[in-house]
Amino acid sequence: MLVPLAVSIIYGGGDYTAFLLAILISTLIGIFLSLLKPTDKKFRTKDALIATALAWIFLSLFGALPFYFSGYFNSFIDCAFESISGFTTTGASILTNVEILPKGILFWRSFSQWIGGIGILVFLLAITPSINASSINLLRAEGTGPSDKFIPKIRETAKFMFLIYFIMTAILIFLLYTVGLPIYDSVLNAFSTAGTGGFSIMNANISAYNNIAAETIITIFMFLFGISFTLYFILLGKNIKKFFKDEELRLYFGIIITAIIIITLNISGLYSGFLEALRYSSFQVSSIISTTAFTITDFNLWPTLSQIILLFLMITGCCAGSTGGGIKLARILILWKTLKNELNKIFHPGSVKTVTINEKNIKQDLITNTTLYFFIYFIIFFVAVLLISIEGKDLITSTTTIIASLSNIGLGLGAIGPVGNFAIFSSFSKIVISFCMLAGRLEFFPILLLLTPSAWKKTL
Amino acid sequence: MLVPLAVSIIYGGGDYTAFLLAILISTLIGIFLSLLKPTDKKFRTKDALIATALAWIFLSLFGALPFYFSGYFNSFIDCAFESISGFTTTGASILTNVEILPKGILFWRSFSQWIGGIGILVFLLAITPSINASSINLLRAEGTGPSDKFIPKIRETAKFMFLIYFIMTAILIFLLYTVGLPIYDSVLNAFSTAGTGGFSIMNANISAYNNIAAETIITIFMFLFGISFTLYFILLGKNIKKFFKDEELRLYFGIIITAIIIITLNISGLYSGFLEALRYSSFQVSSIISTTAFTITDFNLWPTLSQIILLFLMITGCCAGSTGGGIKLARILILWKTLKNELNKIFHPGSVKTVTINEKNIKQDLITNTTLYFFIYFIIFFVAVLLISIEGKDLITSTTTIIASLSNIGLGLGAIGPVGNFAIFSSFSKIVISFCMLAGRLEFFPILLLLTPSAWKKTL
Repeated sequence: MLVPLAVSIIYGGGDYTAFLLAILISTLIGIFLSLLKPTDKKFRTKDALIATALAWIFLSLFGALPFYFSGYFNSFIDCAFESISGFTTTGASILTNVEILPKGILFWRSFSQWIGGIGILVFLLAITPSINASSINLLRAEGTGPSDKFIPKIRETAKFMFLIYFIMTAILIFLLYTVGLPIYDSVLNAFSTAGTGGFSIMNANISAYNNIAAETIITIFMFLFGISFTLYFILLGKNIKKFFKDEELRLYFGIIITAIIIITLNISGLYSGFLEALRYSSFQVSSIISTTAFTITDFNLWPTLSQIILLFLMITGCCAGSTGGGIKLARILILWKTLKNELNKIFHPGSVKTVTINEKNIKQDLITNTTLYFFIYFIIFFVAVLLISIEGKDLITSTTTIIASLSNIGLGLGAIGPVGNFAIFSSFSKIVISFCMLAGRLEFFPILLLLTPSAWKKTL
Repeated sequence: MLVPLAVSIIYGGGDYTAFLLAILISTLIGIFLSLLKPTDKKFRTKDALIATALAWIFLSLFGALPFYFSGYFNSFIDCAFESISGFTTTGASILTNVEILPKGILFWRSFSQWIGGIGILVFLLAITPSINASSINLLRAEGTGPSDKFIPKIRETAKFMFLIYFIMTAILIFLLYTVGLPIYDSVLNAFSTAGTGGFSIMNANISAYNNIAAETIITIFMFLFGISFTLYFILLGKNIKKFFKDEELRLYFGIIITAIIIITLNISGLYSGFLEALRYSSFQVSSIISTTAFTITDFNLWPTLSQIILLFLMITGCCAGSTGGGIKLARILILWKTLKNELNKIFHPGSVKTVTINEKNIKQDLITNTTLYFFIYFIIFFVAVLLISIEGKDLITSTTTIIASLSNIGLGLGAIGPVGNFAIFSSFSKIVISFCMLAGRLEFFPILLLLTPSAWKKTL
């Protein structure tokens, strides 16, 4: 919070006291907690998962303090909602007029997305000196997408990932500034883009700048931040062939190009010609599949076909190991190959084939987890939609709200579409949505574990 | 078709020629096909699956002939749609005025649901004398729900299941007749109820009779036909304890009671008091979860909460081994237990527990198939919604149409709700919907196999 505090002092706006108070409270509680030493020093997988879940919940709640003290929010629930939405890179907002907020608060809002994008814990591991071997479980628990890879040098990996992230963000800031955005806007929009978060500092979102060059740059970078960071590793190792041979990346490319073509043709009648339709469709496809959710047009007005495509991109999301959300294409790929394998077994009952992705065998455990992932998505989706539908919003709004929360996209159809806002919901619904944002970001298991009675029992 | 031919002659209406023509064509082609003898007499699993898929497709197409020759339908696609909807017990109709149809045609329409309910092939196995051991694969392929049970006496099982089905239908006919429905209406409504089909012979559906006793009887029987027929076996064996201990049945009971209570409270403001709300909610819950889709009120006008519940009941459906559709509660149960098992593994990494239902171990193969089932549902749902959304129906209509087809319910929200009709769709969409009805009824694998290139290669 020292960074937004500095911004607040530089730009004025009187919100520096909010940060000072928040820093004071956080520090005091932090000192108190660090005095409590665990009696059992073993760090098991379940401890890592539960620690990750708790860390995300409490860091989000502390992150809500500056909002609360700023006086621009109606209740602490609203503050917590906005903070959780930030750290989980969802980008759902309950603010109906962001332009009246002081610059420090807006900075904190976008900065939380940038931290959440790379992962709160990766962020901490990269910048704090103390570290030990058990942190590997922490990293794994907050990482996006299915993965059973062994990370040998945890500290180096965290630092390196953070470095790539930092450099890409810096390039984006530079480019946005070059095409005419103010430096403050360049930085904050870059934060939201890098974290695939989507918090905007303008009421009219990205369309407020009326700057096609900036839109194009953001389109490209939303797409880039939806790619697995491990692939950038590979690219930096000059293994360009391996980069382009990655099956998930190819699927990602393929889906994006197909979606853009179909939507462009589908909406071309609504705009002045093919090129303008292409501009809107490519921006929105890149924004939705990367789960960023910036907008430059109201796709609530698009034909059903285009809306269906966007709706499915919201559910699938982008690549595992990226800053984006959703189910992740790697999971789709694993299930698709498992399905092909099972069908193949019917034709050749004797043959035993394993599922491979990028020529690597996928273990049975990972397949089971991936398939269960779909089921958990379905269960949480059902319960959450049921709970928020009590207040009686229409069917499309209720269902896409939960999809938007679970996929950390923060934008749906109906009343939470491009011109909509999450302020319409009751406090109860906001809590349900907050839960979904956290569950989605941590990919269910850590949050589910918190809900099981065993998590609260002392381990013998 | 001899049965509807007889009905047609008894009641008049001039449609007997349609049946005569259809019988003639079917017989000629049948004789021709029976002359073709297979060179390879081996009957593998894949052969059974493909034979089942082809049998359902072609029997449905032959079943469309009487409709076509009757002259009451616009095109052969419409006839095939209605016939597939009948045999798959979906009950989606493209007829906007059923009351003008001759009695023979209406009989055939409802009769097809009765045959489809128990399974076309079970029906044939039960009434035809020639049978061999390989038929077991056929039965398994068209059975509803996940099952790896061994059926030792195939012919006896088929006969016994058919007998239970026949007796239950007869009781229903008797009861409906007793409370005042004409004999013709009693028979046809009983057919549609038994098959959990939902074709109605009245434009105003069941509400046309304005007969609360009949509604109550149908409510109870829709519920009964949603229960696994194996459980009736058990009940007849006087093992009442085992019957009520069945985990799927308990879940079925639980969901129905919960849904009825919530919906009754939710809609009570719309009707004159609690009792009337209870009447409507219990009828519609029973109708939707059993995937029958009879209606006595327009639930498009109900609040979102009630609609969400109905929507999820459409997806889940009822019990495996019943005449109903949907994903089946047994699959939900398997996945739920697998999920609990996986979470348990995190707490007790050493322990190995297997998933059990009704104290029986569930094999890993069945778990994999069940989890893949969700994924296939998702994929087919996506592709089908995409295809029918080309013609630009609204989002709710497009999505619930495909749910209604895949779950063989034939009723959704929006334009295909209780007062809606499938006539609104283009021929292209009707073909997509027909495909979904067949895919849903055969639970995907047989139809998916047909789409794989290997299915068309000669086996070496």
